[in-house]
Amino acid sequence: MREPLALEMEPDHGGPLFLAIAEAITRDITRGRLRPGARLPGTRALARELGVHRNTVDAAYQELLTQGWLQVEPARGTFVAQDLPQGMLVRRPAPVPMDPVAPRAGLAFSDGAPDPKLVPDKALARAFRRALLSPAFRAGADYGDVRGTSSLREALAGYLATDRGVVAEPSRLLITRGSQMALFLAVRAALSPGEVIAVEEPGYPLAWEAFRAAGAEVRGVPVDGGGLRIDALEATLARDPRIRAVCVTPHHQYPTTVTMGAARRLQLLEMAQRHGLTLIEDDYDHEYRFEGRPVLPLAARAPEGLPLIYVGSLSKLLSPGIRLGYALAPEPLLRRMAEARAAIDRQGDAPLEAALAELIRDGDLGRHARKARRVYRARRDLLAALLGEHLAGRATFDLPAGGLALWLRCEGSAEDWAEAAGQAGLALLPGTRFALEGPAPQAFRLGYAALDEAQIARAVEILAQSVPG
Amino acid sequence: MREPLALEMEPDHGGPLFLAIAEAITRDITRGRLRPGARLPGTRALARELGVHRNTVDAAYQELLTQGWLQVEPARGTFVAQDLPQGMLVRRPAPVPMDPVAPRAGLAFSDGAPDPKLVPDKALARAFRRALLSPAFRAGADYGDVRGTSSLREALAGYLATDRGVVAEPSRLLITRGSQMALFLAVRAALSPGEVIAVEEPGYPLAWEAFRAAGAEVRGVPVDGGGLRIDALEATLARDPRIRAVCVTPHHQYPTTVTMGAARRLQLLEMAQRHGLTLIEDDYDHEYRFEGRPVLPLAARAPEGLPLIYVGSLSKLLSPGIRLGYALAPEPLLRRMAEARAAIDRQGDAPLEAALAELIRDGDLGRHARKARRVYRARRDLLAALLGEHLAGRATFDLPAGGLALWLRCEGSAEDWAEAAGQAGLALLPGTRFALEGPAPQAFRLGYAALDEAQIARAVEILAQSVPG
Repeated sequence: MREPLALEMEPDHGGPLFLAIAEAITRDITRGRLRPGARLPGTRALARELGVHRNTVDAAYQELLTQGWLQVEPARGTFVAQDLPQGMLVRRPAPVPMDPVAPRAGLAFSDGAPDPKLVPDKALARAFRRALLSPAFRAGADYGDVRGTSSLREALAGYLATDRGVVAEPSRLLITRGSQMALFLAVRAALSPGEVIAVEEPGYPLAWEAFRAAGAEVRGVPVDGGGLRIDALEATLARDPRIRAVCVTPHHQYPTTVTMGAARRLQLLEMAQRHGLTLIEDDYDHEYRFEGRPVLPLAARAPEGLPLIYVGSLSKLLSPGIRLGYALAPEPLLRRMAEARAAIDRQGDAPLEAALAELIRDGDLGRHARKARRVYRARRDLLAALLGEHLAGRATFDLPAGGLALWLRCEGSAEDWAEAAGQAGLALLPGTRFALEGPAPQAFRLGYAALDEAQIARAVEILAQSVPG
Repeated sequence: MREPLALEMEPDHGGPLFLAIAEAITRDITRGRLRPGARLPGTRALARELGVHRNTVDAAYQELLTQGWLQVEPARGTFVAQDLPQGMLVRRPAPVPMDPVAPRAGLAFSDGAPDPKLVPDKALARAFRRALLSPAFRAGADYGDVRGTSSLREALAGYLATDRGVVAEPSRLLITRGSQMALFLAVRAALSPGEVIAVEEPGYPLAWEAFRAAGAEVRGVPVDGGGLRIDALEATLARDPRIRAVCVTPHHQYPTTVTMGAARRLQLLEMAQRHGLTLIEDDYDHEYRFEGRPVLPLAARAPEGLPLIYVGSLSKLLSPGIRLGYALAPEPLLRRMAEARAAIDRQGDAPLEAALAELIRDGDLGRHARKARRVYRARRDLLAALLGEHLAGRATFDLPAGGLALWLRCEGSAEDWAEAAGQAGLALLPGTRFALEGPAPQAFRLGYAALDEAQIARAVEILAQSVPG
């Protein structure tokens, strides 16, 4: 049930309208008229009630979210924070009273995060201990290269060669805080401000944020069941000569999970060469391949001299709380990326990098990957079986060959479905979240990896009960 | 002894000249004509020999440094890398044969780094272990806020209030990878591209890099024995209305170590308010105060509403290999910094942040600070006594009240002195390293904290023997 919200706005506030609204809400909270955990009306509803533009209410909510007065749960709504007065933003707030006919399940399909319960924490703790107590660390010898700890670059180079057929000189690897930073640095090094990067549509909004922060404009190119549409890319390039780079997720397209086939890969490489484009290959979850052999990255077959920046991450493999990404790039792109990294971040995290180098060398990472692959494959299969059973005729999907998510297409409004499921305690990510310029796909990205079997079963149950109208 | 360098340049190379030089050098390395550890001629000498501009040789060396063929030791020179063919850049290469009349001491005065041998590594390893094995980490609850782990923000807020009189709401703290990132984000949030930030001259070149990377221009304002000259700042502001921010190191000015007095602090705060400037206070080594009480930061007395961004670091306290900085800023600056951080780096390092929160809560950090202060104070006193004894009449200094460096002023060319000391195995940082627009001060920043008593004695001995002319 939504709480009624009768705001007393100060008539002579003077400042911006959104601040007046924000202050009226905080007054109601401090007076106890809005209690911790209370649900706020949607921005559209409140805007109508107050007779203001929806953006104004948006700005007020945003302000209060930042200050910690409110918290948001994706697809569930906006609530008064539980942990006032510290005013923290938390991603998983304490349970919030829900409509009794739909008891709160507290479930969420993520965008494809791994299960933190599987993280090899004891092996990690041991590796951290060895890294911190090593003579090299005490001697201060284990840091200082902006490209990252040399032991990790060597270990990663071996891993990429063995596991993915990517020949990586350690000197051409740059360890970053996560793939987010690698994407930012890639565009910063490859493009000049005002130039344009073509991206997949639907695609990965956090990458777009990184590219914009690096000064680039972002242009969408549609994706179909075979990945990025090469014909559409060619047409887009013809229309806008400012496009100087393309970013793709060919292994498991984000968010649709499809794999780009061999023919398109060759066309893409050829087109990049012909137009002098920089290619950014975001291979964010290479390890998770359940059917057949993983397709080798573009980086494994790119012609000599093509400016291709290969971006990967260990966060998907270990835990979203372990932030470690990397980029492989030819000179002089790598040098420019390293220079930009030095200016914004100086250098990396020596203990973490040394610890992960140990995990790779000792084989712990490989063992963990095999175990995680088994677990996630079973979860994928269960999800697919239950979706087929309970949602036949309501939604369709292709079994993803890999990755930690499933792309569920539906008839009608995915937003409405997400709203109904959210009311019943299941957070969903509808296609609107992944749309740039084109129409939002009527679909969901169901990141299932962090849900156990019982949670998957319950989630599909809620999904089936929430089918709109 | 310098190796002769008879480069065979390809006459029809075609590409840029600096690449032709770089390739000639790599050919000599692969053919064994230049051996690992061999010293290269200075850029000026080689430029003269080849009849090219010095910048061209600079660019060639830079290229080879980046590729890992060469390595540089500050104030010692440029060498063929020891660890070919992996091609790593290392800060402390393996020992290099030196002129026998000046046996290699392998000593360096840093720019003010702490001693990694003092790092409380066992306490850190225990804290990492507890953080990684905590239920919160396994539940994935301990990450996701772009401002950093809430336990660390709470612990830091308490630390800043108790230790420095700075009232810091945890919600207004942003944990960063190091103070470098905090400085970058501060200017990115506070200035628009093309606006100007005034900085201390001489000052901290890595901060200037961060500011430029954030799109700002950097303008120097001279420093004297009382810190930033307020009269000069006023004159500079009058000349350039694009100046919208000022960055200062009032506690121990970098590099000169002087403390800004109370009167100037008040003038600076007043001036910032009058001109609507954003103040960035880089309090990089607050903990290290040996004489009297630490002066409270500007942030402890800034008037309400002044846009002051307070930047600090735990790296100086623990180890340069432990990268952790933070910024305290009012809304909406903090929100803009957090947004920019999310775009370039998404979020922080949950295990490190949780481990450091434990170190603060358990009192380990405070104990370590007290111990380190004792050790460094004794090293400072020894250095000062020996300098007074051996360099009287050649150089002067004021005993720094705090910090991990001493500013040694000399007659004549500090560059020549550094060159001579470098030949004898002591790396020095002369004033040229800290000059922006003004003339380079004839002085050195002697960061002594990582040198033990014997090393300090030997370093002063080399200094005394290397007095030029």
